[in-house]
Amino acid sequence: MRREDDIQELVSKFFEKDRMALAKIITIVENEPGRAKEIFDILYKNTGNAYIVGITGSPGAGKSTLICKLAQEMRNRGKTVGIISIDPSSPFSGGAFLGDRVRMREITSDPEIFIRSVASRGMSGGLSKATYDIATVFDAYGKDYIIIETVGAGQAEVDVIKIADTIVCVFMPGAGDSIQAQKAGIMEIGDIMVVNKADLDGDKLALQLEMALDSYTRQTGWRPPVLSTIATDGVGISELLEAIEEHRKHIELSGVIEERRRKHIEKKIKDIVESLVQEYVYKYLNEDKEIEKLVDKVYSREENLYSAASKLLKPIIKKFEE
Amino acid sequence: MRREDDIQELVSKFFEKDRMALAKIITIVENEPGRAKEIFDILYKNTGNAYIVGITGSPGAGKSTLICKLAQEMRNRGKTVGIISIDPSSPFSGGAFLGDRVRMREITSDPEIFIRSVASRGMSGGLSKATYDIATVFDAYGKDYIIIETVGAGQAEVDVIKIADTIVCVFMPGAGDSIQAQKAGIMEIGDIMVVNKADLDGDKLALQLEMALDSYTRQTGWRPPVLSTIATDGVGISELLEAIEEHRKHIELSGVIEERRRKHIEKKIKDIVESLVQEYVYKYLNEDKEIEKLVDKVYSREENLYSAASKLLKPIIKKFEE
Repeated sequence: MRREDDIQELVSKFFEKDRMALAKIITIVENEPGRAKEIFDILYKNTGNAYIVGITGSPGAGKSTLICKLAQEMRNRGKTVGIISIDPSSPFSGGAFLGDRVRMREITSDPEIFIRSVASRGMSGGLSKATYDIATVFDAYGKDYIIIETVGAGQAEVDVIKIADTIVCVFMPGAGDSIQAQKAGIMEIGDIMVVNKADLDGDKLALQLEMALDSYTRQTGWRPPVLSTIATDGVGISELLEAIEEHRKHIELSGVIEERRRKHIEKKIKDIVESLVQEYVYKYLNEDKEIEKLVDKVYSREENLYSAASKLLKPIIKKFEE
Repeated sequence: MRREDDIQELVSKFFEKDRMALAKIITIVENEPGRAKEIFDILYKNTGNAYIVGITGSPGAGKSTLICKLAQEMRNRGKTVGIISIDPSSPFSGGAFLGDRVRMREITSDPEIFIRSVASRGMSGGLSKATYDIATVFDAYGKDYIIIETVGAGQAEVDVIKIADTIVCVFMPGAGDSIQAQKAGIMEIGDIMVVNKADLDGDKLALQLEMALDSYTRQTGWRPPVLSTIATDGVGISELLEAIEEHRKHIELSGVIEERRRKHIEKKIKDIVESLVQEYVYKYLNEDKEIEKLVDKVYSREENLYSAASKLLKPIIKKFEE
């Protein structure tokens, strides 16, 4: 009971926009599956209003600075912002250079910008689940925009970024990024391409990207624009937010956003069921006395691995066939 | 029925020591879980006689040459050999230099030495399962020794090599291997340490290894010997086989081998059950009509992800609580 009360109190503080309560709830959601369920039972009906922007790109492309400026631009338009960083090298995740820290102070001092970093759990499932849960909490808290920062590296990052409504891919000149991007499948998922540090021979890269984009046909009828920014000087930031709003209008009118969000919901439900079943099976296998006898039989070659496994499996399988 | 006959015929050829049948059966075991079960139903009772030697070490340490010579030494003592290579850079796996190929011809021409390479499936589970299954087939075929070659890299390799009865770790001078090994946990699992290319200042490395070994206490009461070999010239190979036989005697007398093999059997049974359950859950989730309704409810915020998941889970969970 006591615990119940804790959560009730915590949640009411949360709805009074208490930042500490927000932080606490995120921590619970990340670390205590049991209580997370209780919390989502209460919070979830207040979600669905935030717009999620995913920002990906290789380390050094200037994602973090771009995000700082973009968040400020959003604030200037009276919107609130939640930032989730999954890039270990990001200043948001503590991997900061002095310059970053200075720039970051501008936004970390703003009470309407909340930053949270997620430790990469290695396995893609856990990572995107954690990100999705935190985004859900930000959403319920009333954040207008949620920005997710990832490194445009492997499949794990791509899975994570896919929960975004608009995906922004950040490139920098002279990093061979455009080729990398095509390899990593970034070109397929990006809704907006940004050439940051455009003052460093950005036109060539922009052209490469335009040409690369020509080779992709999209069902959604949206041609990703290629923008140029100099994040450190705030150049091109408001144009970026404009482009994001453009894309938002496009996917809202075309119904793509609903389709996307339904797909995520379906995937997340399945992921949760699968991980829960795994837990049960694991528990079942470690409590089951039968297994010792079966090991003896396999060791003495009365049974083989597969016949033994199917003996343990039978009761479980039945369920699915009923 | 026809298929049944195929397998009956294949297996009888297999027991007549037909190499083609052996190759076919391994391919089936690797790629057709359904028929694999049928095959193991027949083969498994003929297993348990082969002795499995795992050989691990970083690429360039000369594992493959060492294995060639070791296999020949085994043949000289009238024993038959099956080799399973999981090292992508190994000549056994096709990643050969000319020199390797020449050396390999010596053993690939021997009908009593059968070589099979396993494509690293990335995920540790699949890899060790495939290796274990192939080793089981070699065992049933009547191989006296089974040699498993892996790169001493990550957890996946360590999982694979653990199915061996005797684990040989191969090091080469001047590669910083001894430190690497301790990081990778190789020192804990190695039963025999080999300094190959010992002519290249091997004594220093041997000493480092001896010192490193001092810092590990083992329950089994076996102190891994540190041997020196020059595989290219066949130096130290018969001593290596002697050491393997030493260790074999030790674990057979101490009962460690039975303990180890029972543990593997238990783990394999659990792995098979878990992967089969996953398949079923996956199938169940993709056939279940309920999920569409639940997605609607979650999208409209009547339900949240976790409540929806638990609704799908209930019937599954019941099974485990019965």
